[in-house]
Amino acid sequence: MQIIGEKINGTRKRVAQAIKERDAAFIQNLAIKQAEAGSAWLDANAGTHPDSEPEDLIWLVETIQAVTDVPLCLDSANPQALAAAIAVVNKTPMINSISGEPQRLEGILPLVAEHGCPVIALAMDDKSIPETVEKRMEVVRKIMAATRAAGVPDDHVYLDPLAMTLATNINSALITLDTMRSILQEFPAVHLTMGLSNISFGLPARSYINRAFLTLALQAGLDSAIIDPLDRELRAALVAAELVLGRDNYCLNYTRAYRAGLFGK
Amino acid sequence: MQIIGEKINGTRKRVAQAIKERDAAFIQNLAIKQAEAGSAWLDANAGTHPDSEPEDLIWLVETIQAVTDVPLCLDSANPQALAAAIAVVNKTPMINSISGEPQRLEGILPLVAEHGCPVIALAMDDKSIPETVEKRMEVVRKIMAATRAAGVPDDHVYLDPLAMTLATNINSALITLDTMRSILQEFPAVHLTMGLSNISFGLPARSYINRAFLTLALQAGLDSAIIDPLDRELRAALVAAELVLGRDNYCLNYTRAYRAGLFGK
Repeated sequence: MQIIGEKINGTRKRVAQAIKERDAAFIQNLAIKQAEAGSAWLDANAGTHPDSEPEDLIWLVETIQAVTDVPLCLDSANPQALAAAIAVVNKTPMINSISGEPQRLEGILPLVAEHGCPVIALAMDDKSIPETVEKRMEVVRKIMAATRAAGVPDDHVYLDPLAMTLATNINSALITLDTMRSILQEFPAVHLTMGLSNISFGLPARSYINRAFLTLALQAGLDSAIIDPLDRELRAALVAAELVLGRDNYCLNYTRAYRAGLFGK
Repeated sequence: MQIIGEKINGTRKRVAQAIKERDAAFIQNLAIKQAEAGSAWLDANAGTHPDSEPEDLIWLVETIQAVTDVPLCLDSANPQALAAAIAVVNKTPMINSISGEPQRLEGILPLVAEHGCPVIALAMDDKSIPETVEKRMEVVRKIMAATRAAGVPDDHVYLDPLAMTLATNINSALITLDTMRSILQEFPAVHLTMGLSNISFGLPARSYINRAFLTLALQAGLDSAIIDPLDRELRAALVAAELVLGRDNYCLNYTRAYRAGLFGK
Protein backbone atom coordinates (compact mmCIF):
# COMPACT_ATOMS: atom_id res chain seq x y z
CA MET A 1 0.00 0.00 0.00
CA GLN A 2 1.55 3.27 -1.15
CA ILE A 3 0.54 6.37 0.78
CA ILE A 4 0.46 9.62 -1.21
CA GLY A 5 0.73 12.35 1.43
CA GLU A 6 -1.96 14.94 0.71
CA LYS A 7 -1.07 17.82 2.97
CA ILE A 8 0.98 20.11 0.70
CA ASN A 9 -1.99 21.35 -1.27
CA GLY A 10 -2.32 24.97 -2.33
CA THR A 11 -6.09 24.79 -2.43
CA ARG A 12 -5.88 24.80 1.39
CA LYS A 13 -5.79 28.28 2.82
CA ARG A 14 -2.79 27.85 5.12
CA VAL A 15 -0.69 26.16 2.42
CA ALA A 16 -1.68 28.82 -0.15
CA GLN A 17 -0.46 31.48 2.23
CA ALA A 18 2.86 29.67 2.74
CA ILE A 19 3.34 29.42 -1.02
CA LYS A 20 2.49 33.07 -1.53
CA GLU A 21 4.89 34.18 1.22
CA ARG A 22 7.57 31.65 0.22
CA ASP A 23 7.44 30.25 3.76
CA ALA A 24 9.79 27.32 3.19
CA ALA A 25 9.84 26.25 6.85
CA PHE A 26 6.09 25.64 6.89
CA ILE A 27 6.18 23.54 3.73
CA GLN A 28 9.29 21.63 4.77
CA ASN A 29 7.77 20.75 8.11
CA LEU A 30 4.78 19.20 6.32
CA ALA A 31 7.14 17.37 3.98
CA ILE A 32 9.31 15.94 6.76
CA LYS A 33 6.38 14.86 8.90
CA GLN A 34 4.63 13.13 6.01
CA ALA A 35 7.86 11.42 4.97
CA GLU A 36 8.44 10.18 8.53
CA ALA A 37 4.88 8.84 8.59
CA GLY A 38 5.70 6.50 5.70
CA SER A 39 4.54 8.37 2.60
CA ALA A 40 5.69 6.73 -0.64
CA TRP A 41 4.92 9.97 -2.50
CA LEU A 42 4.31 13.57 -1.46
CA ASP A 43 1.59 15.41 -3.31
CA ALA A 44 2.66 18.91 -4.37
CA ASN A 45 -0.11 21.26 -5.40
CA ALA A 46 0.81 24.92 -5.86
CA GLY A 47 -2.71 26.22 -6.21
CA THR A 48 -4.56 27.25 -9.29
CA HIS A 49 -3.38 30.75 -10.18
CA PRO A 50 -2.73 30.34 -13.95
CA ASP A 51 -0.16 33.16 -13.98
CA SER A 52 2.00 32.07 -11.09
CA GLU A 53 1.41 28.30 -10.95
CA PRO A 54 4.52 27.21 -12.91
CA GLU A 55 6.80 29.39 -10.81
CA ASP A 56 5.01 28.43 -7.58
CA LEU A 57 5.24 24.74 -8.36
CA ILE A 58 8.97 24.97 -9.10
CA TRP A 59 9.47 26.70 -5.76
CA LEU A 60 7.37 24.03 -4.02
CA VAL A 61 9.32 21.18 -5.62
CA GLU A 62 12.69 22.67 -4.77
CA THR A 63 11.59 23.52 -1.24
CA ILE A 64 10.39 19.96 -0.57
CA GLN A 65 13.37 18.29 -2.25
CA ALA A 66 15.73 20.24 0.00
CA VAL A 67 14.54 18.21 3.00
CA THR A 68 13.38 14.80 1.75
CA ASP A 69 14.07 12.37 -1.07
CA VAL A 70 10.55 10.94 -1.08
CA PRO A 71 9.41 11.33 -4.71
CA LEU A 72 6.79 13.90 -5.56
CA CYS A 73 3.31 13.64 -6.95
CA LEU A 74 2.92 16.76 -9.08
CA ASP A 75 -0.67 17.86 -8.66
CA SER A 76 -1.83 20.16 -11.43
CA ALA A 77 -4.13 20.30 -14.43
CA ASN A 78 -1.79 22.79 -16.11
CA PRO A 79 0.65 21.25 -18.62
CA GLN A 80 2.94 24.29 -18.46
CA ALA A 81 3.27 24.03 -14.68
CA LEU A 82 3.84 20.28 -14.91
CA ALA A 83 6.51 20.63 -17.60
CA ALA A 84 8.29 23.31 -15.57
CA ALA A 85 8.25 21.15 -12.43
CA ILE A 86 9.35 17.98 -14.22
CA ALA A 87 12.43 19.93 -15.34
CA VAL A 88 13.55 20.43 -11.71
CA VAL A 89 12.59 17.16 -9.94
CA ASN A 90 15.34 14.88 -8.62
CA LYS A 91 13.29 11.71 -9.05
CA THR A 92 10.68 10.66 -11.60
CA PRO A 93 7.45 12.17 -10.25
CA MET A 94 3.94 10.84 -10.29
CA ILE A 95 1.52 13.10 -12.19
CA ASN A 96 -1.84 14.00 -10.60
CA SER A 97 -3.88 13.86 -12.79
CA ILE A 98 -5.40 13.05 -16.13
CA SER A 99 -9.06 12.21 -16.71
CA GLY A 100 -11.21 11.30 -19.67
CA GLU A 101 -11.41 15.00 -20.58
CA PRO A 102 -9.83 15.26 -24.08
CA GLN A 103 -8.06 18.55 -23.31
CA ARG A 104 -6.43 17.10 -20.21
CA LEU A 105 -5.39 13.92 -22.00
CA GLU A 106 -3.88 15.87 -24.89
CA GLY A 107 -2.10 18.34 -22.66
CA ILE A 108 -0.68 16.02 -20.01
CA LEU A 109 -0.35 12.53 -21.50
CA PRO A 110 2.61 13.44 -23.75
CA LEU A 111 4.54 14.60 -20.65
CA VAL A 112 3.67 11.38 -18.83
CA ALA A 113 4.82 9.26 -21.76
CA GLU A 114 7.98 11.25 -22.42
CA HIS A 115 9.21 11.16 -18.82
CA GLY A 116 8.01 7.68 -17.89
CA CYS A 117 5.87 8.99 -15.05
CA PRO A 118 3.27 7.08 -13.08
CA VAL A 119 -0.01 8.95 -13.55
CA ILE A 120 -3.26 9.24 -11.63
CA ALA A 121 -6.32 9.00 -13.88
CA LEU A 122 -9.75 10.04 -12.66
CA ALA A 123 -12.78 8.05 -13.85
CA MET A 124 -14.60 11.15 -15.07
CA ASP A 125 -14.59 13.02 -18.35
CA ASP A 126 -15.80 16.47 -17.41
CA LYS A 127 -16.57 18.24 -14.19
CA SER A 128 -19.21 15.73 -13.08
CA ILE A 129 -18.60 12.23 -11.74
CA PRO A 130 -20.59 9.49 -13.52
CA GLU A 131 -23.24 8.07 -11.17
CA THR A 132 -23.04 4.42 -12.20
CA VAL A 133 -20.29 1.82 -12.32
CA GLU A 134 -20.89 1.24 -16.02
CA LYS A 135 -20.59 4.93 -16.88
CA ARG A 136 -17.35 5.21 -14.90
CA MET A 137 -16.06 2.13 -16.75
CA GLU A 138 -16.83 3.79 -20.08
CA VAL A 139 -14.52 6.65 -19.06
CA VAL A 140 -11.90 4.20 -17.78
CA ARG A 141 -11.88 2.40 -21.13
CA LYS A 142 -11.44 5.72 -22.92
CA ILE A 143 -8.53 6.66 -20.66
CA MET A 144 -6.85 3.26 -21.04
CA ALA A 145 -7.16 3.47 -24.82
CA ALA A 146 -5.43 6.84 -24.67
CA THR A 147 -2.63 5.80 -22.28
CA ARG A 148 -1.94 2.68 -24.33
CA ALA A 149 -1.91 4.68 -27.56
CA ALA A 150 0.60 7.04 -25.95
CA GLY A 151 2.81 4.11 -24.96
CA VAL A 152 2.24 4.41 -21.20
CA PRO A 153 2.44 0.92 -19.66
CA ASP A 154 -0.70 -0.14 -17.75
CA ASP A 155 1.22 -0.47 -14.49
CA HIS A 156 2.09 3.24 -14.62
CA VAL A 157 -1.61 4.09 -14.49
CA TYR A 158 -3.16 4.73 -11.05
CA LEU A 159 -6.89 4.72 -11.65
CA ASP A 160 -9.03 6.67 -9.21
CA PRO A 161 -12.59 5.23 -9.30
CA LEU A 162 -13.74 8.39 -7.45
CA ALA A 163 -15.69 8.56 -4.25
CA MET A 164 -18.54 10.97 -3.70
CA THR A 165 -19.77 11.76 -0.23
CA LEU A 166 -22.19 9.39 1.48
CA ALA A 167 -24.02 12.50 2.68
CA THR A 168 -25.72 12.87 -0.70
CA ASN A 169 -25.74 9.24 -1.90
CA ILE A 170 -25.83 6.40 0.62
CA ASN A 171 -24.69 3.95 -2.10
CA SER A 172 -21.65 6.03 -2.95
CA ALA A 173 -19.06 3.73 -1.35
CA LEU A 174 -20.64 0.61 -2.84
CA ILE A 175 -20.51 2.17 -6.32
CA THR A 176 -16.85 3.06 -5.85
CA LEU A 177 -15.95 -0.42 -4.55
CA ASP A 178 -17.77 -2.06 -7.46
CA THR A 179 -15.97 0.24 -9.90
CA MET A 180 -12.65 -0.86 -8.39
CA ARG A 181 -13.47 -4.53 -8.90
CA SER A 182 -14.58 -3.88 -12.48
CA ILE A 183 -11.41 -1.97 -13.25
CA LEU A 184 -9.15 -4.76 -11.97
CA GLN A 185 -11.14 -7.39 -13.81
CA GLU A 186 -10.72 -5.57 -17.10
CA PHE A 187 -7.27 -4.01 -16.54
CA PRO A 188 -5.48 -6.28 -14.05
CA ALA A 189 -2.09 -4.53 -14.33
CA VAL A 190 -3.21 -1.05 -13.30
CA HIS A 191 -2.94 0.38 -9.81
CA LEU A 192 -5.91 1.76 -7.92
CA THR A 193 -5.72 4.96 -5.93
CA MET A 194 -8.19 7.30 -4.32
CA GLY A 195 -8.71 10.63 -2.65
CA LEU A 196 -10.16 8.69 0.23
CA SER A 197 -11.64 11.40 2.39
CA ASN A 198 -14.15 12.62 -0.20
CA ILE A 199 -16.38 9.77 1.00
CA SER A 200 -17.10 11.58 4.28
CA PHE A 201 -17.36 15.18 3.01
CA GLY A 202 -19.95 17.12 4.99
CA LEU A 203 -20.32 14.45 7.71
CA PRO A 204 -19.08 14.59 11.30
CA ALA A 205 -16.31 12.42 12.80
CA ARG A 206 -14.98 11.84 9.30
CA SER A 207 -12.01 9.70 10.24
CA TYR A 208 -14.28 6.83 11.36
CA ILE A 209 -15.96 6.77 7.97
CA ASN A 210 -12.63 7.06 6.15
CA ARG A 211 -11.25 4.09 8.13
CA ALA A 212 -14.18 1.83 7.34
CA PHE A 213 -14.02 2.81 3.68
CA LEU A 214 -10.26 2.28 3.54
CA THR A 215 -10.66 -1.22 5.01
CA LEU A 216 -13.25 -2.19 2.40
CA ALA A 217 -11.30 -0.53 -0.42
CA LEU A 218 -8.15 -2.48 0.47
CA GLN A 219 -10.14 -5.67 0.09
CA ALA A 220 -11.42 -4.45 -3.28
CA GLY A 221 -7.84 -3.93 -4.50
CA LEU A 222 -6.82 -0.40 -3.53
CA ASP A 223 -3.01 -0.35 -3.51
CA SER A 224 -2.36 3.35 -3.00
CA ALA A 225 -4.30 6.26 -1.57
CA ILE A 226 -4.10 10.02 -1.28
CA ILE A 227 -4.51 10.47 2.46
CA ASP A 228 -3.34 12.45 5.44
CA PRO A 229 -0.51 10.27 6.77
CA LEU A 230 -0.53 12.31 9.98
CA ASP A 231 -3.96 10.82 10.81
CA ARG A 232 -2.57 8.13 13.10
CA GLU A 233 -5.89 6.37 13.57
CA LEU A 234 -6.26 6.07 9.80
CA ARG A 235 -2.77 4.60 9.48
CA ALA A 236 -3.46 2.23 12.37
CA ALA A 237 -6.63 1.10 10.60
CA LEU A 238 -4.59 0.56 7.44
CA VAL A 239 -2.02 -1.63 9.19
CA ALA A 240 -4.77 -3.60 10.96
CA ALA A 241 -6.73 -4.09 7.73
CA GLU A 242 -3.69 -5.40 5.90
CA LEU A 243 -3.16 -7.89 8.72
CA VAL A 244 -6.77 -9.06 8.63
CA LEU A 245 -6.62 -9.38 4.84
CA GLY A 246 -3.72 -11.83 5.16
CA ARG A 247 -1.13 -9.43 3.71
CA ASP A 248 1.20 -9.23 6.70
CA ASN A 249 3.18 -12.44 7.10
CA TYR A 250 3.91 -13.34 10.71
CA CYS A 251 2.10 -10.11 11.69
CA LEU A 252 5.46 -8.37 11.27
CA ASN A 253 4.27 -4.96 10.11
CA TYR A 254 1.53 -4.97 12.70
CA THR A 255 3.78 -5.78 15.62
CA ARG A 256 6.42 -3.34 14.36
CA ALA A 257 3.79 -0.57 14.18
CA TYR A 258 2.64 -1.51 17.67
CA ARG A 259 6.16 -1.27 19.05
CA ALA A 260 6.54 2.09 17.33
CA GLY A 261 3.51 3.33 19.23
CA LEU A 262 1.07 3.69 16.33
CA PHE A 263 -1.83 2.21 18.29
CA GLY A 264 -1.51 4.57 21.22
CA LYS A 265 -1.75 3.20 24.71
CA MET B 1 -26.88 -5.80 13.32
CA GLN B 2 -27.70 -7.49 16.62
CA ILE B 3 -25.10 -7.15 19.37
CA ILE B 4 -24.86 -10.07 21.80
CA GLY B 5 -23.18 -8.56 24.87
CA GLU B 6 -20.39 -10.89 25.94
CA LYS B 7 -19.36 -9.60 29.33
CA ILE B 8 -21.34 -11.81 31.72
CA ASN B 9 -19.19 -14.88 31.21
CA GLY B 10 -18.24 -17.17 34.06
CA THR B 11 -15.07 -18.29 32.33
CA ARG B 12 -13.71 -14.82 33.20
CA LYS B 13 -12.17 -14.72 36.64
CA ARG B 14 -13.96 -11.65 37.96
CA VAL B 15 -17.36 -12.85 36.77
CA ALA B 16 -16.74 -16.34 38.18
CA GLN B 17 -16.01 -14.77 41.54
CA ALA B 18 -19.22 -12.71 41.42
CA ILE B 19 -21.24 -15.83 40.60
CA LYS B 20 -19.61 -17.79 43.39
CA GLU B 21 -20.22 -15.00 45.91
CA ARG B 22 -23.70 -14.24 44.55
CA ASP B 23 -22.57 -10.65 44.00
CA ALA B 24 -25.73 -9.46 42.25
CA ALA B 25 -24.62 -5.81 42.08
CA PHE B 26 -21.56 -6.68 39.99
CA ILE B 27 -23.56 -8.75 37.51
CA GLN B 28 -26.40 -6.24 37.32
CA ASN B 29 -24.00 -3.42 36.61
CA LEU B 30 -22.63 -5.37 33.64
CA ALA B 31 -26.17 -6.12 32.49
CA ILE B 32 -27.35 -2.52 32.68
CA LYS B 33 -24.27 -1.11 30.96
CA GLN B 34 -24.46 -3.60 28.12
CA ALA B 35 -28.19 -2.99 27.70
CA GLU B 36 -27.63 0.77 27.58
CA ALA B 37 -24.95 0.25 24.94
CA GLY B 38 -27.52 -1.27 22.60
CA SER B 39 -27.21 -5.02 23.15
CA ALA B 40 -30.01 -7.00 21.50
CA TRP B 41 -29.12 -10.01 23.68
CA LEU B 42 -27.09 -10.49 26.84
CA ASP B 43 -24.93 -13.58 26.97
CA ALA B 44 -25.21 -15.41 30.30
CA ASN B 45 -22.53 -17.98 31.05
CA ALA B 46 -22.39 -19.36 34.57
CA GLY B 47 -19.08 -21.15 34.21
CA THR B 48 -18.43 -24.81 33.72
CA HIS B 49 -18.76 -26.45 37.13
CA PRO B 50 -20.97 -29.45 36.27
CA ASP B 51 -22.33 -29.70 39.81
CA SER B 52 -23.34 -26.11 40.32
CA GLU B 53 -23.95 -24.88 36.76
CA PRO B 54 -27.74 -25.32 36.67
CA GLU B 55 -28.20 -23.52 39.98
CA ASP B 56 -25.63 -20.85 39.06
CA LEU B 57 -27.28 -20.20 35.70
CA ILE B 58 -30.71 -19.84 37.29
CA TRP B 59 -29.28 -17.29 39.71
CA LEU B 60 -27.57 -15.47 36.85
CA VAL B 61 -30.78 -15.33 34.78
CA GLU B 62 -32.88 -14.08 37.67
CA THR B 63 -30.23 -11.55 38.69
CA ILE B 64 -30.02 -10.10 35.19
CA GLN B 65 -33.77 -10.14 34.59
CA ALA B 66 -34.29 -8.11 37.73
CA VAL B 67 -32.69 -5.08 36.06
CA THR B 68 -33.23 -5.37 32.30
CA ASP B 69 -35.70 -6.84 29.85
CA VAL B 70 -33.10 -7.40 27.14
CA PRO B 71 -33.49 -11.10 26.26
CA LEU B 72 -30.78 -13.54 27.30
CA CYS B 73 -28.42 -15.71 25.35
CA LEU B 74 -28.00 -18.80 27.53
CA ASP B 75 -24.40 -19.86 27.10
CA SER B 76 -23.82 -23.48 28.10
CA ALA B 77 -23.01 -26.89 26.67
CA ASN B 78 -24.97 -28.51 29.50
CA PRO B 79 -28.55 -29.51 28.60
CA GLN B 80 -29.55 -29.72 32.28
CA ALA B 81 -28.36 -26.19 32.96
CA LEU B 82 -30.09 -24.91 29.82
CA ALA B 83 -33.39 -26.64 30.67
CA ALA B 84 -33.28 -25.23 34.20
CA ALA B 85 -32.61 -21.71 32.92
CA ILE B 86 -35.27 -21.88 30.18
CA ALA B 87 -37.78 -22.62 32.95
CA VAL B 88 -37.13 -19.23 34.59
CA VAL B 89 -36.58 -16.82 31.67
CA ASN B 90 -39.11 -14.06 31.04
CA LYS B 91 -38.47 -13.94 27.29
CA THR B 92 -37.57 -16.63 24.77
CA PRO B 93 -33.79 -16.91 25.05
CA MET B 94 -31.18 -17.53 22.42
CA ILE B 95 -29.17 -20.73 23.04
CA ASN B 96 -25.37 -20.62 22.80
CA SER B 97 -24.54 -23.13 21.40
CA ILE B 98 -24.82 -26.27 19.36
CA SER B 99 -22.15 -27.58 16.99
CA GLY B 100 -21.76 -30.57 14.69
CA GLU B 101 -20.85 -32.70 17.71
CA PRO B 102 -23.56 -35.41 17.86
CA GLN B 103 -23.77 -35.33 21.65
CA ARG B 104 -24.35 -31.60 21.69
CA LEU B 105 -26.94 -31.80 18.90
CA GLU B 106 -28.84 -34.59 20.67
CA GLY B 107 -28.70 -32.93 24.05
CA ILE B 108 -29.56 -29.34 23.12
CA LEU B 109 -31.50 -29.37 19.85
CA PRO B 110 -34.71 -30.79 21.40
CA LEU B 111 -34.75 -27.86 23.87
CA VAL B 112 -34.24 -25.40 21.02
CA ALA B 113 -37.06 -26.94 19.02
CA GLU B 114 -39.47 -27.25 21.93
CA HIS B 115 -39.08 -23.67 23.10
CA GLY B 116 -38.73 -21.99 19.70
CA CYS B 117 -35.32 -20.56 20.59
CA PRO B 118 -32.87 -18.92 18.23
CA VAL B 119 -29.67 -20.95 18.46
CA ILE B 120 -26.00 -20.32 17.78
CA ALA B 121 -24.35 -23.15 15.84
CA LEU B 122 -20.57 -23.44 15.63
CA ALA B 123 -19.04 -24.72 12.37
CA MET B 124 -17.04 -27.43 14.13
CA ASP B 125 -17.80 -30.98 15.11
CA ASP B 126 -15.32 -31.69 17.86
CA LYS B 127 -12.79 -29.69 19.79
CA SER B 128 -10.85 -28.63 16.71
CA ILE B 129 -11.89 -26.02 14.15
CA PRO B 130 -11.72 -27.24 10.53
CA GLU B 131 -8.92 -25.45 8.69
CA THR B 132 -10.61 -25.05 5.30
CA VAL B 133 -13.81 -23.43 4.09
CA GLU B 134 -14.97 -26.71 2.55
CA LYS B 135 -14.48 -28.66 5.78
CA ARG B 136 -16.37 -26.04 7.76
CA MET B 137 -19.16 -26.23 5.16
CA GLU B 138 -19.37 -30.00 5.64
CA VAL B 139 -20.07 -29.39 9.32
CA VAL B 140 -22.55 -26.62 8.50
CA ARG B 141 -24.46 -28.99 6.21
CA LYS B 142 -24.59 -31.60 8.95
CA ILE B 143 -25.89 -29.04 11.46
CA MET B 144 -28.51 -27.70 9.05
CA ALA B 145 -29.72 -31.23 8.32
CA ALA B 146 -30.14 -31.75 12.07
CA THR B 147 -31.89 -28.43 12.76
CA ARG B 148 -34.27 -28.96 9.85
CA ALA B 149 -34.98 -32.53 10.98
CA ALA B 150 -35.76 -31.15 14.44
CA GLY B 151 -38.17 -28.61 12.95
CA VAL B 152 -36.07 -25.53 13.74
CA PRO B 153 -36.68 -22.89 11.04
CA ASP B 154 -33.52 -21.77 9.22
CA ASP B 155 -33.95 -18.19 10.39
CA HIS B 156 -33.64 -19.32 14.01
CA VAL B 157 -30.13 -20.60 13.28
CA TYR B 158 -27.22 -18.22 13.94
CA LEU B 159 -24.24 -19.86 12.28
CA ASP B 160 -20.81 -19.00 13.64
CA PRO B 161 -18.21 -19.64 10.90
CA LEU B 162 -15.51 -19.43 13.62
CA ALA B 163 -12.49 -17.20 13.65
CA MET B 164 -9.07 -18.41 14.75
CA THR B 165 -6.36 -15.97 15.67
CA LEU B 166 -4.29 -14.36 12.94
CA ALA B 167 -1.29 -14.90 15.21
CA THR B 168 -1.10 -18.54 14.13
CA ASN B 169 -2.66 -18.37 10.64
CA ILE B 170 -2.41 -15.18 8.60
CA ASN B 171 -5.24 -16.41 6.34
CA SER B 172 -7.58 -16.98 9.24
CA ALA B 173 -9.84 -13.99 8.58
CA LEU B 174 -10.03 -14.70 4.85
CA ILE B 175 -11.09 -18.30 5.57
CA THR B 176 -13.79 -17.09 7.96
CA LEU B 177 -15.08 -14.47 5.50
CA ASP B 178 -15.19 -17.03 2.69
CA THR B 179 -17.04 -19.46 4.95
CA MET B 180 -19.62 -16.75 5.65
CA ARG B 181 -20.20 -16.17 1.94
CA SER B 182 -20.51 -19.91 1.31
CA ILE B 183 -23.00 -20.32 4.16
CA LEU B 184 -25.26 -17.55 2.87
CA GLN B 185 -25.09 -18.87 -0.68
CA GLU B 186 -26.24 -22.32 0.44
CA PHE B 187 -28.51 -21.31 3.34
CA PRO B 188 -29.74 -17.79 2.57
CA ALA B 189 -32.24 -17.64 5.45
CA VAL B 190 -29.83 -18.25 8.32
CA HIS B 191 -28.21 -15.55 10.42
CA LEU B 192 -24.46 -15.23 10.82
CA THR B 193 -22.85 -14.50 14.15
CA MET B 194 -19.36 -14.61 15.56
CA GLY B 195 -17.23 -14.43 18.67
CA LEU B 196 -15.40 -11.62 16.96
CA SER B 197 -12.44 -11.08 19.21
CA ASN B 198 -10.94 -14.54 18.74
CA ILE B 199 -9.40 -13.17 15.54
CA SER B 200 -6.91 -11.10 17.53
CA PHE B 201 -6.10 -13.53 20.36
CA GLY B 202 -2.49 -13.22 21.45
CA LEU B 203 -1.87 -9.99 19.50
CA PRO B 204 -1.44 -6.47 20.86
CA ALA B 205 -3.86 -3.57 20.37
CA ARG B 206 -6.61 -6.09 19.67
CA SER B 207 -9.43 -3.62 19.18
CA TYR B 208 -7.88 -2.32 15.94
CA ILE B 209 -7.83 -5.83 14.49
CA ASN B 210 -11.35 -6.54 15.73
CA ARG B 211 -12.63 -3.35 14.08
CA ALA B 212 -11.10 -4.15 10.69
CA PHE B 213 -12.43 -7.69 10.87
CA LEU B 214 -15.90 -6.50 11.90
CA THR B 215 -16.00 -4.12 8.94
CA LEU B 216 -15.12 -6.87 6.47
CA ALA B 217 -17.45 -9.37 8.16
CA LEU B 218 -20.38 -6.97 7.89
CA GLN B 219 -19.78 -6.79 4.17
CA ALA B 220 -19.69 -10.60 4.03
CA GLY B 221 -23.12 -10.80 5.68
CA LEU B 222 -22.55 -10.84 9.44
CA ASP B 223 -25.81 -9.71 11.05
CA SER B 224 -25.05 -10.34 14.71
CA ALA B 225 -21.92 -10.65 16.80
CA ILE B 226 -20.84 -11.62 20.28
CA ILE B 227 -18.83 -8.57 21.29
CA ASP B 228 -18.03 -6.24 24.14
CA PRO B 229 -20.59 -3.46 23.64
CA LEU B 230 -18.66 -1.32 26.11
CA ASP B 231 -15.81 -1.09 23.58
CA ARG B 232 -16.89 2.29 22.22
CA GLU B 233 -14.37 2.32 19.40
CA LEU B 234 -15.67 -1.04 18.20
CA ARG B 235 -19.25 0.23 18.26
CA ALA B 236 -18.18 3.41 16.47
CA ALA B 237 -16.51 1.27 13.80
CA LEU B 238 -19.72 -0.73 13.49
CA VAL B 239 -21.89 2.35 12.95
CA ALA B 240 -19.39 3.77 10.45
CA ALA B 241 -19.15 0.48 8.55
CA GLU B 242 -22.92 0.22 8.23
CA LEU B 243 -22.97 3.75 6.84
CA VAL B 244 -20.23 2.99 4.29
CA LEU B 245 -22.00 -0.23 3.29
CA GLY B 246 -25.10 1.77 2.36
CA ARG B 247 -27.22 0.45 5.23
CA ASP B 248 -27.95 3.73 6.98
CA ASN B 249 -30.46 5.79 5.01
CA TYR B 250 -29.88 9.52 5.25
CA CYS B 251 -26.96 8.74 7.61
CA LEU B 252 -29.53 8.78 10.43
CA ASN B 253 -27.94 6.22 12.75
CA TYR B 254 -24.52 7.69 12.15
CA THR B 255 -25.52 11.24 12.95
CA ARG B 256 -27.57 10.06 15.94
CA ALA B 257 -24.55 8.17 17.30
CA TYR B 258 -22.42 11.26 16.71
CA ARG B 259 -24.81 13.47 18.65
CA ALA B 260 -24.84 10.87 21.45
CA GLY B 261 -21.07 11.24 21.69
CA LEU B 262 -20.05 7.79 20.41
CA PHE B 263 -17.21 9.19 18.33
CA GLY B 264 -15.56 11.11 21.15
CA LYS B 265 -14.34 14.58 20.50
